[in-house]
Amino acid sequence: MYGRYTQELGVYAKEEAARLRDGGVRDGSGLRRNTSVRSRTADLLEYEKDPCAKCQVCASRCQKFLISRVGEDWIFLILLGLLMALVSWVMDYAIAFCQEAQKWMHGGLDSNMLLQYIAWVSYPVVLITFSAGFTQILAPQAVGSGIPEMKTILRGVVLKEYLTFKTFVAKVIGLTCALGSGMPLGKEGPFVHVASLCAALLSKFMAAVFGGIYMNELRNTEMLSAACAVGVGCCFAAPIGGVLFSIEVTSTFFAVRNYWRGFFAATFSAFVFRLLTVSNQEEETITALFKTRFRLDFPFDLQELPAFAILGIACGFGGALFVYLNRHIVECMRKQKTINKFLLRKRLVYPALVTLLVSTLTFPPGFGQFMAGQLTQHESLVALFDNRTWCRQGVAEEFDYISHHHAWKHPQVNIFITLILFIVMKFWMSAVATTMPVPCGAFMPVFLIGAAFGRLVGEVMATMFPDGIHGDVYPIVPGGYAVVGAAALSGAVTHTVSTAVIVFELTGQISHILPVMIAVILANAVAQALQPSLYDSIIRIKKLPYLPELGMGHHEKYNIRVEDIMVRDVRFITLNSSYRDLQEMLLTGHLKTLALVECRDSMILLGSIERLQLQSLLSLQLSRQRRLEYLRQLAQDNGAHDPLPSLTSDSTPSSPCAHVHLNSPTNTSARQVVRFLVSTQYLKPFFFFFLTLVSIPLQIAEWEDQQLDQLVDFKNCKIDPAPFQLVEQTSLHKTHTIFSLLGLGHAYVTSMGRLVGVVSLKELRKAIEGSVTVTGVKVRPPLASFRDSGNTTSVSEVTELHKLCMRHRGLSLNGSWHIAYCQNSEPLCE
Amino acid sequence: MYGRYTQELGVYAKEEAARLRDGGVRDGSGLRRNTSVRSRTADLLEYEKDPCAKCQVCASRCQKFLISRVGEDWIFLILLGLLMALVSWVMDYAIAFCQEAQKWMHGGLDSNMLLQYIAWVSYPVVLITFSAGFTQILAPQAVGSGIPEMKTILRGVVLKEYLTFKTFVAKVIGLTCALGSGMPLGKEGPFVHVASLCAALLSKFMAAVFGGIYMNELRNTEMLSAACAVGVGCCFAAPIGGVLFSIEVTSTFFAVRNYWRGFFAATFSAFVFRLLTVSNQEEETITALFKTRFRLDFPFDLQELPAFAILGIACGFGGALFVYLNRHIVECMRKQKTINKFLLRKRLVYPALVTLLVSTLTFPPGFGQFMAGQLTQHESLVALFDNRTWCRQGVAEEFDYISHHHAWKHPQVNIFITLILFIVMKFWMSAVATTMPVPCGAFMPVFLIGAAFGRLVGEVMATMFPDGIHGDVYPIVPGGYAVVGAAALSGAVTHTVSTAVIVFELTGQISHILPVMIAVILANAVAQALQPSLYDSIIRIKKLPYLPELGMGHHEKYNIRVEDIMVRDVRFITLNSSYRDLQEMLLTGHLKTLALVECRDSMILLGSIERLQLQSLLSLQLSRQRRLEYLRQLAQDNGAHDPLPSLTSDSTPSSPCAHVHLNSPTNTSARQVVRFLVSTQYLKPFFFFFLTLVSIPLQIAEWEDQQLDQLVDFKNCKIDPAPFQLVEQTSLHKTHTIFSLLGLGHAYVTSMGRLVGVVSLKELRKAIEGSVTVTGVKVRPPLASFRDSGNTTSVSEVTELHKLCMRHRGLSLNGSWHIAYCQNSEPLCE
Repeated sequence: MYGRYTQELGVYAKEEAARLRDGGVRDGSGLRRNTSVRSRTADLLEYEKDPCAKCQVCASRCQKFLISRVGEDWIFLILLGLLMALVSWVMDYAIAFCQEAQKWMHGGLDSNMLLQYIAWVSYPVVLITFSAGFTQILAPQAVGSGIPEMKTILRGVVLKEYLTFKTFVAKVIGLTCALGSGMPLGKEGPFVHVASLCAALLSKFMAAVFGGIYMNELRNTEMLSAACAVGVGCCFAAPIGGVLFSIEVTSTFFAVRNYWRGFFAATFSAFVFRLLTVSNQEEETITALFKTRFRLDFPFDLQELPAFAILGIACGFGGALFVYLNRHIVECMRKQKTINKFLLRKRLVYPALVTLLVSTLTFPPGFGQFMAGQLTQHESLVALFDNRTWCRQGVAEEFDYISHHHAWKHPQVNIFITLILFIVMKFWMSAVATTMPVPCGAFMPVFLIGAAFGRLVGEVMATMFPDGIHGDVYPIVPGGYAVVGAAALSGAVTHTVSTAVIVFELTGQISHILPVMIAVILANAVAQALQPSLYDSIIRIKKLPYLPELGMGHHEKYNIRVEDIMVRDVRFITLNSSYRDLQEMLLTGHLKTLALVECRDSMILLGSIERLQLQSLLSLQLSRQRRLEYLRQLAQDNGAHDPLPSLTSDSTPSSPCAHVHLNSPTNTSARQVVRFLVSTQYLKPFFFFFLTLVSIPLQIAEWEDQQLDQLVDFKNCKIDPAPFQLVEQTSLHKTHTIFSLLGLGHAYVTSMGRLVGVVSLKELRKAIEGSVTVTGVKVRPPLASFRDSGNTTSVSEVTELHKLCMRHRGLSLNGSWHIAYCQNSEPLCE
Repeated sequence: MYGRYTQELGVYAKEEAARLRDGGVRDGSGLRRNTSVRSRTADLLEYEKDPCAKCQVCASRCQKFLISRVGEDWIFLILLGLLMALVSWVMDYAIAFCQEAQKWMHGGLDSNMLLQYIAWVSYPVVLITFSAGFTQILAPQAVGSGIPEMKTILRGVVLKEYLTFKTFVAKVIGLTCALGSGMPLGKEGPFVHVASLCAALLSKFMAAVFGGIYMNELRNTEMLSAACAVGVGCCFAAPIGGVLFSIEVTSTFFAVRNYWRGFFAATFSAFVFRLLTVSNQEEETITALFKTRFRLDFPFDLQELPAFAILGIACGFGGALFVYLNRHIVECMRKQKTINKFLLRKRLVYPALVTLLVSTLTFPPGFGQFMAGQLTQHESLVALFDNRTWCRQGVAEEFDYISHHHAWKHPQVNIFITLILFIVMKFWMSAVATTMPVPCGAFMPVFLIGAAFGRLVGEVMATMFPDGIHGDVYPIVPGGYAVVGAAALSGAVTHTVSTAVIVFELTGQISHILPVMIAVILANAVAQALQPSLYDSIIRIKKLPYLPELGMGHHEKYNIRVEDIMVRDVRFITLNSSYRDLQEMLLTGHLKTLALVECRDSMILLGSIERLQLQSLLSLQLSRQRRLEYLRQLAQDNGAHDPLPSLTSDSTPSSPCAHVHLNSPTNTSARQVVRFLVSTQYLKPFFFFFLTLVSIPLQIAEWEDQQLDQLVDFKNCKIDPAPFQLVEQTSLHKTHTIFSLLGLGHAYVTSMGRLVGVVSLKELRKAIEGSVTVTGVKVRPPLASFRDSGNTTSVSEVTELHKLCMRHRGLSLNGSWHIAYCQNSEPLCE
């Protein structure tokens, strides 16, 4: 009987091994806790392929394709430009169609006010709700502007699902619906995201078809930054402004060698985009999107410059207020728990309510008549940039009511009132509307508000100086003020100067360059002093892993040094670490890389190892193959005798380990059961069958324990032999620069080769955002150059070095070997 | 007698010490070789003040001023803008005056052709010769454009004398004279240099007056990059183009946070510059410098785009040819040894000859009549940008001869011939003229040639399609072609895209944005494929320490890794180094920093030490104070007995060293003389007096030897504890990026903490310029991201690590101390 059982045991062992191979021993429910170490270990081994093998394949392909790299860059950029221009044009067409449909409904129902109102309101509500629902279901990542996310991605952080085909579809369709509804939403921010999506998908497609260069990660980043330029460029048909805006908005340090890529792609895209308009017989030739016709010979008087400056400063305050309002709305709703709960459950209620409110207020026969409610953004902008004066000496002029000017002239209400109402209403409406969970940007609404504000100032100036400042020769052009205001307010909200270039390209005139530049710079100065940019504000709201900029005014930052913010309790492994240490390290920490030091005493940093590598080391040690081998061995050994003795007497070959694994908490309880069973000798006959079943997994657990107690063999492990190192004295400013420049995620802090701490993005962000307060720290000159870091040896370092010297000397002078160096370098027994 | 001598010896010792303190023992000529070690050591000690002490002062001042930093930035930028605008305006005024004077002379002497010719020719020859001579005498650094130098300085390399007041004066006066001469030279490049000089001097001035923040080195770099923008901005009154151009031309990686500085300063400067013109009643209001009046509604036909594209491509070839020609002229003259010798002796002959040639050819009644020779650059440009067509159906139109158009119309010669002659002549003239040793740039001449070429293409188009492409409605505007050509050719020569923006700002019209962008991008593509940019070409000619860009087409660069280019024979010091090793190291090498490793065997990199620090360590060891102390001690010891015994019997306290210092080559011969004297006992009485005189310096040399044999005490030495490290497998591309980003001068190559090599800018430059050829090296994916460097452990590293592991294990498992680790760590005896 024994014989039969033991023979069956061999079969069982094989089955068990197969079972282990397939899915661990989870079905053996009674033994689950015993093998939990194994299954937890298995959970850690979620690595896919060897990244290096992939690398090798890639390298050989690269060799083949490298020669034609530049050519492929051109082709890629042309394709990207073409695609984006098409997307932009089709979207614009669809949006215009949607808006026409609303107008047609509104016009056709003018006999019945109620019907008219219902049509006017329900149309956008349906569109926005559909947009919100569609986005929510398909890809929630498509919500919002996308610029904050792109900023984070270009910073080097991988945001999952932000660059997939699903997101692309959701963003394009959601955006079309949202803009078609006529809400005060923008196309520009989302378009940056759409272009990036396009570039990422195109890269993937090209990589699948042609392979080679398209697989390179850094190349993809370069293409993404070009895509951002394309996004802005083909949205406004403003290639130069697009490139500059995308640089300002997404980069911290810009590689000038990528400049031409952006220019080329954005120009091509803008060209095709405008060409499509021409080919569609809409226009005669390629000109600007919002062409103005200001006079060239005397665009503005020098005495008007103070007015432009004041306009700029006011726009700066306005921009800061907009950012504050936008953030405040989101934060308010988050804080109100009941509202928050309700909105989380019924996600479509909020956008529907907001749309209802906004469209009710803009209903043309209602309140909308006082704020040009019937005009679309495009129509409003064309009217605002008009080169004629709307009112002279306070009385509205009677010029020909072409295009959309009549919407601004209410028979009873002054043009000033209309403009003020328009500005105030649109201001809060835009701030609210951009918080809706649909794909939308805030640039265009802000641009429009700025234009209206500029027009208001211009009309006031025209009223004050009806004959121009220098007599009747050159009257004031309020349209110029509108251009300046638009650039200034959008510049203030986004903290960019390149909106100036965008307005020149949008209007096709550069004659107002000086007032625009003055206003934009002043607006930026004011807004930057008061609030973060809209995109940084959204990054904070969304808690994206982005490294904030060092503010210009926050000079206490210069006082902080790395030693003030670093984590001193670094997770490290030594050359003497056992696999158990490794396992513990992997189970308790969640760091992506671990430091490798020489020994616990010297702490000399040898390199860093990726978590993945360590996991594979561990899995290799406890691999199925070795496990199977062990089981086979076991089966052979147990071919003739009872498997129990090794269990009852704990006489495994690795006796020192046995003590350890009995004390290990993970498999204690099952073991206690077995012990109880064994100690109560008289029960033995009854439970024998059960025990036989149990013993194999137990032996495997034992074997695992033995394996874990071995020292780690780093031979097959990829080690980064020179991870980035900082010194304790490095200033926060310099650390920030280095992290931004190199896109680091973490850096080790060393002192004379010894690992003393680690700084990650998290600590740095905390420090910058001001949660670290340092008192009594010496002020260091801000960002001393990279080269003179040699002058920063502290007292502690000198002592350290001295100790090191003394050790060396004391021994080498005595002619003896170097004994005392690693005195405490016992193997780790944590 | 002895007593008296020995008493005098004490006095003598004091005197000797004083003499040593003042200037070494150079006057004791017979003993010169004996003390040469000392004097050589003294030569090494050329350090001024303790940089750290300066740092501390700076830090405390910083604390005080840091709070108002942003405010000071604004003030600084305003001052800079104001100054530069004034300089630019005054210079323009002076140049215009010079040119008027020439015209007046030329006009007044029209009765006598010979006199007229002499006046026409001698005037520029005198001006150019003066400019060349003045620059040569005052500051030869002011010669040329200055952009290559600024590029190098912003890269982090310190170029001596390039930012001094002398250079400023030389540059401004030299440039005014050079431009006043009417030669085809430009103002734009030198203006970048002038603005940088202005910023540097202003910084110094502010630092002297206010201290604090103005002393910070990095801040100065930030201000320099803003100054470059100001330079271009106030030269063309083109703030946006100025900022972009300066970024493209001077930076590799641009910090976006500096963007606003450039914009602000350039705008302010351009504003003041143009304001001065208005205040001078020259113009009514602030408008563009070369205002055009192209029609807005239909600037160009879409069918014209191929013509613009061809124009762009032709300009690309032209630009490459210009750069080639310019470099070839310089290289030719360098190669011709007799010419070179002659020119080096008579430095003013070359510019005088060139000027004579050029001005003879442009003499208006002579050959100049066929190439509009009498016009200045400004007048030519205004004419070329004119919105009227010069010829219709091949026949010159008879429009009103306002301004300078008549210069282009020769009664017998076709306008096309005039234009072609103008282009060809100006092309080589500009290429030759810019090689003259005067402050001058090439941007403006190239811009002018481009405009002429564009006008030529435009006129040809106008002749081919006299009624416009679509009938008589919209005729072709040759002025638009001129604008496109100017942007394209200057873009091709400088390898920049931002010339597009500069032409928009210069002409005040942006209507031709699409053709300009297309032409500029195509021109860049062609030119970049054929030649380096003009500035890079000059950098190569001048052999400036700049890191060249990695060319787009040179993909063999990706195959090179750091191990292929690094210097394996690194100069290092160990913790066991003696002062003698240090001295040897300092005498033989010229590196600015030396690596500090643990010991010769382990080679673990602990940090790097600056040469200055080591020099001060050495000087401390052999300091005057210690020397004096020793002499005082000696004098006390010798108070009663003969100083000779210590010499004759070599019984100094440090007997083991005595053997060494007798063998040291530096003081052998004098010592041999003494030995001879001593051994020939019978001569003793005769030479006693002489010996007494000799013995003190000898003893000092002995003392020095003892001191040098001591081990270095690094306690008071500032060590950079984390110098930048690379891995052997780092690709050239990545190394280039890191060096560019961080402005590194050198980086150590380590492998698991062990120092294996060093890479400096020199090696990198060599590798990029192609003098390193690698065969059989595996292709690595170009610039794999910074994060996946973990996947690059090579076989050798694994072996290394394995060895390290084995050592640790073998010992720690035996329970004994860590003995074998540094087996060969004897003190260094090189």
